[in-house]
Amino acid sequence: MTITPASLDALDVDPAFALHRGGKLEVRSTIPVRDADDLSLAYTPGVARVCTAIADTPELVNDYTWVSNVVAVVSDGTAVLGLGDIGPAAAMPVMEGKALLFKEFAGVDAVPICLDCTDVDALVETVVRLAPSFGGINLEDISAPRCFEVEDRLRSLLDIPVFHDDQHGTAIVALAALQNAARLTGRSLGDLRAVIAGAGASGVAVTRILLGAGIGDVAVADSKGVIYTGRDGLNPVKEALARDTNRTGFTGSTEEALSGADVFIGLSGSTVTEEAIMSMAPDAIVFALSNPTPEVHPEVARRHARVVATGRSDFPNQINNVLAFPGVFRGALDVRARTITENMKVAAANALAAVVGDDLSEDYVIPSPFDPRVAPAVIAAVAEQARLDGVARR
Amino acid sequence: MTITPASLDALDVDPAFALHRGGKLEVRSTIPVRDADDLSLAYTPGVARVCTAIADTPELVNDYTWVSNVVAVVSDGTAVLGLGDIGPAAAMPVMEGKALLFKEFAGVDAVPICLDCTDVDALVETVVRLAPSFGGINLEDISAPRCFEVEDRLRSLLDIPVFHDDQHGTAIVALAALQNAARLTGRSLGDLRAVIAGAGASGVAVTRILLGAGIGDVAVADSKGVIYTGRDGLNPVKEALARDTNRTGFTGSTEEALSGADVFIGLSGSTVTEEAIMSMAPDAIVFALSNPTPEVHPEVARRHARVVATGRSDFPNQINNVLAFPGVFRGALDVRARTITENMKVAAANALAAVVGDDLSEDYVIPSPFDPRVAPAVIAAVAEQARLDGVARR
Repeated sequence: MTITPASLDALDVDPAFALHRGGKLEVRSTIPVRDADDLSLAYTPGVARVCTAIADTPELVNDYTWVSNVVAVVSDGTAVLGLGDIGPAAAMPVMEGKALLFKEFAGVDAVPICLDCTDVDALVETVVRLAPSFGGINLEDISAPRCFEVEDRLRSLLDIPVFHDDQHGTAIVALAALQNAARLTGRSLGDLRAVIAGAGASGVAVTRILLGAGIGDVAVADSKGVIYTGRDGLNPVKEALARDTNRTGFTGSTEEALSGADVFIGLSGSTVTEEAIMSMAPDAIVFALSNPTPEVHPEVARRHARVVATGRSDFPNQINNVLAFPGVFRGALDVRARTITENMKVAAANALAAVVGDDLSEDYVIPSPFDPRVAPAVIAAVAEQARLDGVARR
Repeated sequence: MTITPASLDALDVDPAFALHRGGKLEVRSTIPVRDADDLSLAYTPGVARVCTAIADTPELVNDYTWVSNVVAVVSDGTAVLGLGDIGPAAAMPVMEGKALLFKEFAGVDAVPICLDCTDVDALVETVVRLAPSFGGINLEDISAPRCFEVEDRLRSLLDIPVFHDDQHGTAIVALAALQNAARLTGRSLGDLRAVIAGAGASGVAVTRILLGAGIGDVAVADSKGVIYTGRDGLNPVKEALARDTNRTGFTGSTEEALSGADVFIGLSGSTVTEEAIMSMAPDAIVFALSNPTPEVHPEVARRHARVVATGRSDFPNQINNVLAFPGVFRGALDVRARTITENMKVAAANALAAVVGDDLSEDYVIPSPFDPRVAPAVIAAVAEQARLDGVARR
């Protein structure tokens, strides 16, 4: 395709293209530069005194630069939305979108960084080199299982928050919704047996947060069916999952596992039949989170399940990461947390669940992203928990 | 130092610190996100169509993301202002300042990237990995001679503009001022014999641009005196300088070389005596550019020289890089230049010199950074030259 003004105008018939024309972000000065006096403070010679102070007392970088308010949204473009490995350039519209959500929902400055490398060592090394410029690292759309190692290594190497949103953003919001769904149906998490379809970034993280929160049992399925100890060809991440899940040692498909289960969480892009949903226990809870096509249509699921959530904004109970990540980072940055602990994620989920309060119903187990109570609640809970966990630096 | 609110307030008595509190930049959305409809275009699901289009037609990244308007201001913190190797965190106030000047003077979005590595291979590799996120790379405050190799390698590896401002920004503005100073005194560049003190980034680049512009002769001095072919211990950059400069094979100090010279350009942080200035030829031109302390006080120099320039805003004829780099990048980005050619730098210098026009005088050989004619003139000249040189992509 030769790009001409006419070909761009043709693309712009789609309002998504028209909106994206020229990009979605800008960098602005927060101080005036009207004359030579302003320039002599913002730049040389005045800036030299600030540099010298930071060289002497490195923590001052957080007070006299934007670093402590700016998050890098880092991707290698290998697992972008449901589009797969489309590379760093094609990933940029998503990372820009993420950056603008950071700003709009929690006042966090964020810079999209799409990297032209996919090797784990290279990704880790590059982010470590970039780290002095940022107060936090939001990893995004990096394919599994590389994403787990990238995050683990960065968390141990850096003393700033590192958070793979595809994992933990989804996990926080799913936990919040599941807590409310359990409450609605008069059960605790310990009463529930869950089946999770998908053992990628989000499937693993949702499983981990549910285990930490005391779920009764959980079975995780990948494209070959439910994961169990001893299954052939498990990678280390799935081996660990097999150890920690599926207490009964069930072997079979997702749909077979759903028989009598209390909870289904779909994070796979696959489909689940109406019959399988029908076979679940009474008061079933179905989170069909694949986007844009849920594993089962929410109206179909709703015939048999008590609570149905999706990833879509056009059905009730949208499980949307934007409920979590802006407030999680804002809360962490506000107290200059050196990391984001598991407790901080759970605190974010609890705060999110609590926003629903007494308005809880089948169609309202999770607040809207545009509910103005959401970000303040998450921010306060995360900051408080960081202090309790001893990872806050102020 | 334990950082408390009180200790920050004490620092903020200095207006430079007060101005820097909280940093100088923010990232903002350029589009509205008021409701779920906006979100569905700016983010999922709408954004997926834009990503897919870019995956199919990579050049569309320039039209539908901010990439083609955003420059990375990259430093390793090894040669920050006159402060030396203060590291990436302490360099951040300068890089933020640079980024805000890009925006204020030419509407270029710029992101400060301070890297925690100083090895040439590591710097090159890191910037190459970052490159998909940016439309240009402005290298800054990287010490010589590493800066030359970093820039050379990045220029050959990347098809976006790479520009080490300490070299070329200074060179462009110095050339513009020298052209006007020569015109004022009725000479051409070919009539002039220059002495340059300093063989770091800016000294080398100024020498190169003057040689390209046809200067009569130039001798370059480092801390050991004038560089000549055969001098012991020359690094490859200085060996090349020795080959291309100092036609008479002069050996001696900067001050000795100034005897009978037409031009002195100080980029060294050293000092030059009044006697040495006095020994220069009639109508001498003195650019004492070290900051904050010029090599010779401009009032002292003015007793003997016809034209005196400094890097300071409180004397006439300020040689300030901000006259060049915002417009150079704006012009290059506007035509999506794949590189910045030598011709484009000279075109920027010519445009800058031309702004002075008939108002030329001893105290006005270069315009003020706040002259509103400057950026448009540089932008137009650079864009036009990029087209002439065949490096423009639109």
